[in-house]
Amino acid sequence: MFESLNIEQRIDKAEFGAAEPELREQLIESQLSFLEAEQAPIIVILSGMDVIGRSECGKQLLSWLDSRHVRPFATILPGEEGLERPRMWRFWDALPRDGRMGLFLNSWYEGPFTDYILGRIDREQYRARIDEAVRFERMLAHEGALILKFMLFLSEDQTLQALKKFKRKRMGAWKVSRHEMEISKEFANRFDESLEILEELVSATSTHYAPWIPVASTDARYRDLTVGQTISEAMQRRLDAAGPIDPVPVDTNSAGMSDLHTNILDSLDLSQTLSQKEYKRELKKEQKRLTKLTLSKKFEQHSVVAVFEGNDAAGKGGSIRRVVQALDPRLYRVIPIAAPSDEDRAHGYLWRFWRHLPRQGHVTIFDRSWYGRVLVERVEGFSPEADWTRAYEEIRSFESELTDYGVIVVKFWLAIDQQEQLQRFQEREKTGYKRYKITEEDWRNREKWDDYARAVHDMVDRTGTSEAPWTLVEASDKYFARVKVLKTINDRLESELD
Amino acid sequence: MFESLNIEQRIDKAEFGAAEPELREQLIESQLSFLEAEQAPIIVILSGMDVIGRSECGKQLLSWLDSRHVRPFATILPGEEGLERPRMWRFWDALPRDGRMGLFLNSWYEGPFTDYILGRIDREQYRARIDEAVRFERMLAHEGALILKFMLFLSEDQTLQALKKFKRKRMGAWKVSRHEMEISKEFANRFDESLEILEELVSATSTHYAPWIPVASTDARYRDLTVGQTISEAMQRRLDAAGPIDPVPVDTNSAGMSDLHTNILDSLDLSQTLSQKEYKRELKKEQKRLTKLTLSKKFEQHSVVAVFEGNDAAGKGGSIRRVVQALDPRLYRVIPIAAPSDEDRAHGYLWRFWRHLPRQGHVTIFDRSWYGRVLVERVEGFSPEADWTRAYEEIRSFESELTDYGVIVVKFWLAIDQQEQLQRFQEREKTGYKRYKITEEDWRNREKWDDYARAVHDMVDRTGTSEAPWTLVEASDKYFARVKVLKTINDRLESELD
Repeated sequence: MFESLNIEQRIDKAEFGAAEPELREQLIESQLSFLEAEQAPIIVILSGMDVIGRSECGKQLLSWLDSRHVRPFATILPGEEGLERPRMWRFWDALPRDGRMGLFLNSWYEGPFTDYILGRIDREQYRARIDEAVRFERMLAHEGALILKFMLFLSEDQTLQALKKFKRKRMGAWKVSRHEMEISKEFANRFDESLEILEELVSATSTHYAPWIPVASTDARYRDLTVGQTISEAMQRRLDAAGPIDPVPVDTNSAGMSDLHTNILDSLDLSQTLSQKEYKRELKKEQKRLTKLTLSKKFEQHSVVAVFEGNDAAGKGGSIRRVVQALDPRLYRVIPIAAPSDEDRAHGYLWRFWRHLPRQGHVTIFDRSWYGRVLVERVEGFSPEADWTRAYEEIRSFESELTDYGVIVVKFWLAIDQQEQLQRFQEREKTGYKRYKITEEDWRNREKWDDYARAVHDMVDRTGTSEAPWTLVEASDKYFARVKVLKTINDRLESELD
Repeated sequence: MFESLNIEQRIDKAEFGAAEPELREQLIESQLSFLEAEQAPIIVILSGMDVIGRSECGKQLLSWLDSRHVRPFATILPGEEGLERPRMWRFWDALPRDGRMGLFLNSWYEGPFTDYILGRIDREQYRARIDEAVRFERMLAHEGALILKFMLFLSEDQTLQALKKFKRKRMGAWKVSRHEMEISKEFANRFDESLEILEELVSATSTHYAPWIPVASTDARYRDLTVGQTISEAMQRRLDAAGPIDPVPVDTNSAGMSDLHTNILDSLDLSQTLSQKEYKRELKKEQKRLTKLTLSKKFEQHSVVAVFEGNDAAGKGGSIRRVVQALDPRLYRVIPIAAPSDEDRAHGYLWRFWRHLPRQGHVTIFDRSWYGRVLVERVEGFSPEADWTRAYEEIRSFESELTDYGVIVVKFWLAIDQQEQLQRFQEREKTGYKRYKITEEDWRNREKWDDYARAVHDMVDRTGTSEAPWTLVEASDKYFARVKVLKTINDRLESELD
């Protein structure tokens, strides 16, 4: 779920200087409007280790905001008062009034996470405490609270570096407790394992009314501006929100404002190609591998769900053909997903996908999928915001029910750029038998390129999990794309069947 | 949570005969309206063992309804198709279309419950599967489904009897699988333990949009009429519901229609008294006991939250005084709860109660409490339906966070009858120093006696748990009431400190 964090996100001093005054003004204006409306509190959680800048970020926020109306909460361990009362007491006690902001540098997540990482509680206790957190937020959200949860983040190398650097300047301006340092070291030393637990935590507790927003913390300017702008934007949206939807969904771009951050799609190197000779050789090799893997004894206990999404004309069909060529026709089905039928519409939106799930030993390929809800339905406004924002958590649940059962879920986004798409559209219009492939709708979608790109970014960020990861496929060169798709499926199968 | 099931609920043949035709007509009318609207499916779950009449009840329902628009689901174990797909597949497959009804005689609960009771899965797996069920229902509810979950129920003796009787007529008209019999026997043999697990399950999965409705199954006529009328009433309410509340709350009287079932308050014997001599002796004894218990070493790790609710003029104040007389004044606080202050209103509704939670070794007595939301706020319409229906689950969570931490939660409903209340009101108006105690509001509340009685019944049924049970106190005789209160607190303390 932290895919987008591997993109280098930086903002230079000049850009920061230009954006800061406007942001401050917006924040203070939103604060005043909230105070006047007095309808709901704002709950902001800043999570992530101090060594990667949680306190710094909190300080920056406080300097921007009108701090008279912000209630910061930063005590890591419960005090005497809190220790003698049920766990959640100190958080209730720290809740801001309606119209005001609570800024939680430590929240109801740190305790369970730390205790679990350090082996002080077992998995069942951990789950129970996470449930407690979810119920707490649900109650707050039902009563109107705007809840924003930021997860500051660095890669493994960067975390280790930050930890080293931090030790050196430890005697500096602000205090980090021994407890905090201990956790940070533990986290860094067992990075992969910790990350997995964190991903599970974020996945289980990111809801449409209280989403987690992962923020790359490499660059302090990017980090602070992203957090600040996301808060400001969400407050503004809430003030504008009409109607009694309960709880109110929170729409935020995963990585903050679109004009500041790099879209995950922009980080792709679309110039990658394969020669025809290489293609033929690799295709043959990977198809043979796939045949072998799907006919193996071990596969009888598994099944594959493969999802193909991508830009129009990115070559989904061609890739799917190269996959099924390697499969026993009795064992696979390709399900093309168009607009829902009457029958589909008369059921819940996931119903038509559940129906087509493969039996053990089988493969189902979805040519477009349930992701329509957070792509076309979001961008075109076919689904109300409450529905598509909720879909991320519903999709994560759905896919984890599949993977729990042993279904191997592979998801592809086939990416081309605007120029390449234009050429393919024009080419299709010229070629008789391909003309049916290009419609008015394709041209219309093209006009909303940036909206779709944002939707793809959020989709990958919010639904890419270690069990059901997204693979972004550079598809300007069809040969390259097809081989990457096959190879990805094979690698996943190999590791899952192992 | 099954307090009301201990009341003898019976309907005689004549009453049944009188009610049946109208019910059938209503049900079929509601079905047609749902079909026309085509906006949402109806999901009805009938849970509870076959030996106590699940199948019988299902048959009766099917005979009343227009069965062309009902999709029954009764397979206990997944078939070959289902076994080879993720667990929830067969339930997705069984979902009815919008406007139609799915009647689940086996649902997503039987599997986890059975597997857990029989020791096939551990507690963590069990919790995960219950989570899966909750997420499933939440998704359905968000998409508009009307979900009603009936839990058929008998006492231990009755269950054992039914099992015996059932064995004799086993060769009769309908088939009960060996699997089903095995579970039933296991349940009956370990009744208390099973009941506890069931209570936890109902508590964790009863939501405002998909509530459990426990139904006493002693009398088949009562059982079937209650289930039928509850369905009919809920369908009618849903058709009348306006506005886009999401998900739509479901309000049902726990035990079905108010004119059919006996209110739990009606089962109290209000004629119980104590002589003054007995009172003095008992009071002294129980007060001594309380002093000793609260000063004991073991109590330092615990605390008490005592909730006093009751009819106006039922004598809450007097009972509270007799309790605190026995306590060290430094260790207790009495919190009278009136209408919320501005400060209270600016926070979530449970906030003001969290604030007053006792530290370890202390006692907090709430004179009226968080139950205001499901009593006065419900009856007077101060809270929207979405809020007070949700409050039952929020209160259960709240109290279980307390008891998890070691807080001993005791809850009293002091009950008098209408006649007794009238006398006390008149008496208070005559007595100068008591006159302030009686207000216009008290007289107004009196007019809504039946609405309050229904609200109390539902409250006890939905929030009485084995960890935080309700004690109904027959309060026509003050002596009797005071001693019962003290004795209850002492007994609880004794068993919890043990």
